[in-house]
Amino acid sequence: MRIALGIEYDGTDFLGWQRLSHGASVQASLEQALSFVAAQAIEVTCAGRTDAGVHGRCQVVHFDTGVQRDLRGWVLGACSNLPTSVAVLWAKVTPDDFHARFSARSRRYRYTILNRGIRPALDARYVAWERLPLDAEQMHAAAQALIGEHDFSAFRALSCQAAHARREVKSLSVRRAGEQVIVEIEANAFLHHMVRNIVGSLLPVGRGEQPAAWIAELLAGRNREVAGPTAAASGLAFIGPRYPRHWGLPQEVSE
Amino acid sequence: MRIALGIEYDGTDFLGWQRLSHGASVQASLEQALSFVAAQAIEVTCAGRTDAGVHGRCQVVHFDTGVQRDLRGWVLGACSNLPTSVAVLWAKVTPDDFHARFSARSRRYRYTILNRGIRPALDARYVAWERLPLDAEQMHAAAQALIGEHDFSAFRALSCQAAHARREVKSLSVRRAGEQVIVEIEANAFLHHMVRNIVGSLLPVGRGEQPAAWIAELLAGRNREVAGPTAAASGLAFIGPRYPRHWGLPQEVSE
Repeated sequence: MRIALGIEYDGTDFLGWQRLSHGASVQASLEQALSFVAAQAIEVTCAGRTDAGVHGRCQVVHFDTGVQRDLRGWVLGACSNLPTSVAVLWAKVTPDDFHARFSARSRRYRYTILNRGIRPALDARYVAWERLPLDAEQMHAAAQALIGEHDFSAFRALSCQAAHARREVKSLSVRRAGEQVIVEIEANAFLHHMVRNIVGSLLPVGRGEQPAAWIAELLAGRNREVAGPTAAASGLAFIGPRYPRHWGLPQEVSE
Repeated sequence: MRIALGIEYDGTDFLGWQRLSHGASVQASLEQALSFVAAQAIEVTCAGRTDAGVHGRCQVVHFDTGVQRDLRGWVLGACSNLPTSVAVLWAKVTPDDFHARFSARSRRYRYTILNRGIRPALDARYVAWERLPLDAEQMHAAAQALIGEHDFSAFRALSCQAAHARREVKSLSVRRAGEQVIVEIEANAFLHHMVRNIVGSLLPVGRGEQPAAWIAELLAGRNREVAGPTAAASGLAFIGPRYPRHWGLPQEVSE
């Protein structure tokens, strides 16, 4: 039997999603909790791995098990065996050909920038800080050059292991909400550090140090070395993947 | 010279605002940082003390000093000597008769409830959790009985040291925002635990265990023992005091 779960986590105190031998990961915490509930080893596959300090609003995983538990048992059993920074939001039995990663049509991320002269005290885990005033409208205009299918080599981490750099950005918006500037981006898939590298290049545009057209130039140049630095992990949250409706998953992760 | 400061803090890891001998307080952290900047002992007076785990969005303090620093020096100097969970947002020179506590006409608090079946993972520091569905409209209707000047003995902690229990609630709203239910309350002043005790009594109304009229009955009965339990500290944030305009403080703390 294949089961899908929705997972929320605060990434601050983890080395990232992926199980690692040298420190705490969300995956290892989740697998340990599920294995306890199942009384046998459980391994999960996720929709999209996140880096150290990056949060998950609704990560999706699947796993296979022969153990019978009602869905409420998986959710509550896992929650009571997880650290307080990780929670299982829901569980669904899926067809055996559902795959948390390969069945996803797109992924959504949100990047939150606290834009004021003084560093954050409240919400410091959930925002990146930019002290110079940002022009969110200019950032939004610049970012529209990234929409569509392109080679995103300019925004790809050196460590990225993807086979190629072509990705399709479906939407990208930048808006101001009080002291915050919020970047939302949806793409079929992302390269390693792609969102943080895009934000890192939108920041000089927002500060007026680069013209809006710079983003289109960076994209066309495909050269990571001339684009902006990687923005801080704390501002980034994986909102979640989206799957075709026929999988019958909760509305928040369905198209 | 008297100086007023706006202070933001995450109360999670503090025993509360007030300086105490047996653990970390926001006041002690702030006084230590300001004393370092002044190179002499600084003591601050705040607009409203907060309990352990309660957050401050814009607490206001004043202090007296003969030391000359530009206002930017007080703000940035304090920030760089404070833990990351406390920040000084602004500084203003005030007349000598300004008093952070006595000059305030009102105080505002916000209480945030995550209302869903699963405990919070993200934002766990900033919300209280209620797993049963809440009727926010019913809570709002019930809460309107508290508006105006009343004896709030029913919502007053046993430990409260105030001379009397009469307070004037200027506004009280309860609204739903997605999975959150948000309570906002403004009063001339508050008794100890007053907001958390009011929320603790609104929760049974929201769950349908008590009728809306129960809140008016509790108020009239003036008996702390029959009202609801004190709601969790994590959901509570002191938004800040409000002062008459003539003090010339920033807009967020002016009427």
